[in-house]
Amino acid sequence: MSLIVMKFGGSSVADTDKIKFVAKKIIAKKKEGNKIVVVVSAPGNTTDDLLTMVTKITSRPQLREMDVLLATGEMVSIALLSIAIDAMGEKVISMTGPQAGIFADMTYTQARVKSIDSRKIKKQILDDKIVVIAGFQAFNSKRDITTLGRGGSDLTAVVLAATLNADLCEIYSDVDGVYTADPRVVTDAKKIAYVSYDEMLEMAGSGAQILQTRSVEIAKKFNIEVHSKNTFNESKGTVITSKEKIRRSNMETPLVSGVTFSKDNVKFTIVDLPDTPGLAAKIFSRLANINVNVDIIQSVIVNKKNNISFTVDKQDTEKTDLELNKISHEFKSASIVYDDCVAKVSIIGIGMKSNPSIAAKMFEILNNEGINIEIISTSEIKISCIINRLDMLKAVKALHKGFGFSVDNR
Amino acid sequence: MSLIVMKFGGSSVADTDKIKFVAKKIIAKKKEGNKIVVVVSAPGNTTDDLLTMVTKITSRPQLREMDVLLATGEMVSIALLSIAIDAMGEKVISMTGPQAGIFADMTYTQARVKSIDSRKIKKQILDDKIVVIAGFQAFNSKRDITTLGRGGSDLTAVVLAATLNADLCEIYSDVDGVYTADPRVVTDAKKIAYVSYDEMLEMAGSGAQILQTRSVEIAKKFNIEVHSKNTFNESKGTVITSKEKIRRSNMETPLVSGVTFSKDNVKFTIVDLPDTPGLAAKIFSRLANINVNVDIIQSVIVNKKNNISFTVDKQDTEKTDLELNKISHEFKSASIVYDDCVAKVSIIGIGMKSNPSIAAKMFEILNNEGINIEIISTSEIKISCIINRLDMLKAVKALHKGFGFSVDNR
Repeated sequence: MSLIVMKFGGSSVADTDKIKFVAKKIIAKKKEGNKIVVVVSAPGNTTDDLLTMVTKITSRPQLREMDVLLATGEMVSIALLSIAIDAMGEKVISMTGPQAGIFADMTYTQARVKSIDSRKIKKQILDDKIVVIAGFQAFNSKRDITTLGRGGSDLTAVVLAATLNADLCEIYSDVDGVYTADPRVVTDAKKIAYVSYDEMLEMAGSGAQILQTRSVEIAKKFNIEVHSKNTFNESKGTVITSKEKIRRSNMETPLVSGVTFSKDNVKFTIVDLPDTPGLAAKIFSRLANINVNVDIIQSVIVNKKNNISFTVDKQDTEKTDLELNKISHEFKSASIVYDDCVAKVSIIGIGMKSNPSIAAKMFEILNNEGINIEIISTSEIKISCIINRLDMLKAVKALHKGFGFSVDNR
Repeated sequence: MSLIVMKFGGSSVADTDKIKFVAKKIIAKKKEGNKIVVVVSAPGNTTDDLLTMVTKITSRPQLREMDVLLATGEMVSIALLSIAIDAMGEKVISMTGPQAGIFADMTYTQARVKSIDSRKIKKQILDDKIVVIAGFQAFNSKRDITTLGRGGSDLTAVVLAATLNADLCEIYSDVDGVYTADPRVVTDAKKIAYVSYDEMLEMAGSGAQILQTRSVEIAKKFNIEVHSKNTFNESKGTVITSKEKIRRSNMETPLVSGVTFSKDNVKFTIVDLPDTPGLAAKIFSRLANINVNVDIIQSVIVNKKNNISFTVDKQDTEKTDLELNKISHEFKSASIVYDDCVAKVSIIGIGMKSNPSIAAKMFEILNNEGINIEIISTSEIKISCIINRLDMLKAVKALHKGFGFSVDNR
């Protein structure tokens, strides 16, 4: 008998027909002899609808109250799903995040899970009940309701799987799994059967929206096998697991596993900085102090003057600009260039590490398409290029083809 | 400095414009130097929308999960209202029923409040905050979310006013107060300036939907002065208070305060029961055992045979019918007659008690209209008649006119 955590995204519970379908799916899995813990997101567009109401009231809502508001969406889901499961004759109980004992820090709208008191959940599992838990939400030491930020329901699922020592964590959505590239953009993108935690981390951090980064980190840390599957068909999905397990499974590991892209960044360049040791460090520590997350950095020294380019999250544009203008004022010679027409394309794969020719091939593919690379960043299993946003889709398609994903190599 | 509990119904927070309007109203009352506790219902049709979703899943939803679902409506209200108040620069904090310490028994969907641990609320009031509390909801000893049944937000407001020893409880809705008859039916119905708890109790129990019966009981028990007012205008509303206070205020007390009606009842008649002592008692105790609330009873003995007529809540029709058929089977001679085309019209007033001619006048008015009275029931401050439902509106209008409400007598 296995303990399985099944997580269903908002599109899987968007209306009552889908809720009934999901209830059947859960019951079928239970009847195979498993213990089931379900984590569920808010139905369909509920969260966006609530946010629209807030914008009609104010542009600066109190964050504590935002969390009270946003938590209602998942409560609707757990109640309706439990009602459906009960109506089909299975024992079930719903729990909000606080009821499930999910305890977080004092941050609102972006809370971090600190611990889970799983006794109530375990008691209900022992009582042979399906336990349906609201994703995305927690409580803090003031007994306030808090939420875990975008993708928070994935996090709830993986953290619960770790705490309950689950055998498996299934993440259900409206896509079949992890692809070699976004199938909405690259029509011949292939589903990947196995992907390592590290590759998945790089993919999540590079624009693929399958699974939230923090969830993958926790899955890796606790070695939770995660299956990404489609709610509405029986296709095999993607297994996200450790490198070792993939190797043991004797799968042929290709050099590159996938191509990702993101247009959520803007580029800043500080022109003609004096080439003083420690100056760059000073600038980036000041950005860190105001919670700006710098992604890719490139520093070029020309005639003893330093040009530093870097990308930040689009939403941090304003505060970055403000801080850089202060800095440029302090180092009189420096001026700021801002570019919001950039995109990041990345190739990711554990096979890449041992093969230096991959980078060269990537640059060649982009060059052949006449695409100019503005900044390059490499890690052991990822190479990212900042390019003009207008070239993004062309780059993704060319890389996908150039690295041979058009033939099934897994 | 007074402590005021302000309760706003669903129509008062139906959209973001109304929520902003209500926020301003609350802040104005705070700025007059009062401490404010707000109780709020779910916005507009939220609750009905949620119920519609449930009916698409099952006709017999699990009650515990219904409460999780229904509680979300009020959470949306407290969050949005708090966001609006905060955006206008006032200190505010929202609380769900459980967070506010409202503790109830183990019933779901119809829970009864057992106690309130008001320490958290008092702390926030001392901290000069407006406290916005979700009406209609509580928690039980399992830490489950429960709801208090129809009109539950009124109950939350009055119970909080009692617990916090508030100076006043204001109930805001989309009507101006308590009327001599439902103004949607009787166009010249007059607003009543003062009404006693007992009259209000009879009115609530006789179909007037201004204030839920249990709320009036608690207001009476703790002597909480309740003001029924319109959210959207500055009219004086109706003061619901003790007989003594109304008398002290030197108001001319009319014999009859108002006319009410209800079509939520059905009539059963058990024909030709043997006239055996204790038989009627046995029948009604059996109905009580299956939680059927019998309203008006009439027993007529003809030729040593007893015909017993009574009314029950429409929603209890099925189980009453089932039980009566068992009973009729046991006493072979008895047959059951069922009539769902009945209505109840009542006149209510504390002045009635000392004036026996009121009943005669009521019967005369109905008789003049050619309306047949099927059952009569009287209490110290109320006379109710069961009549044909088709005559109901005619009866209400005739009684309203006949007792002189068409001229302002208060």
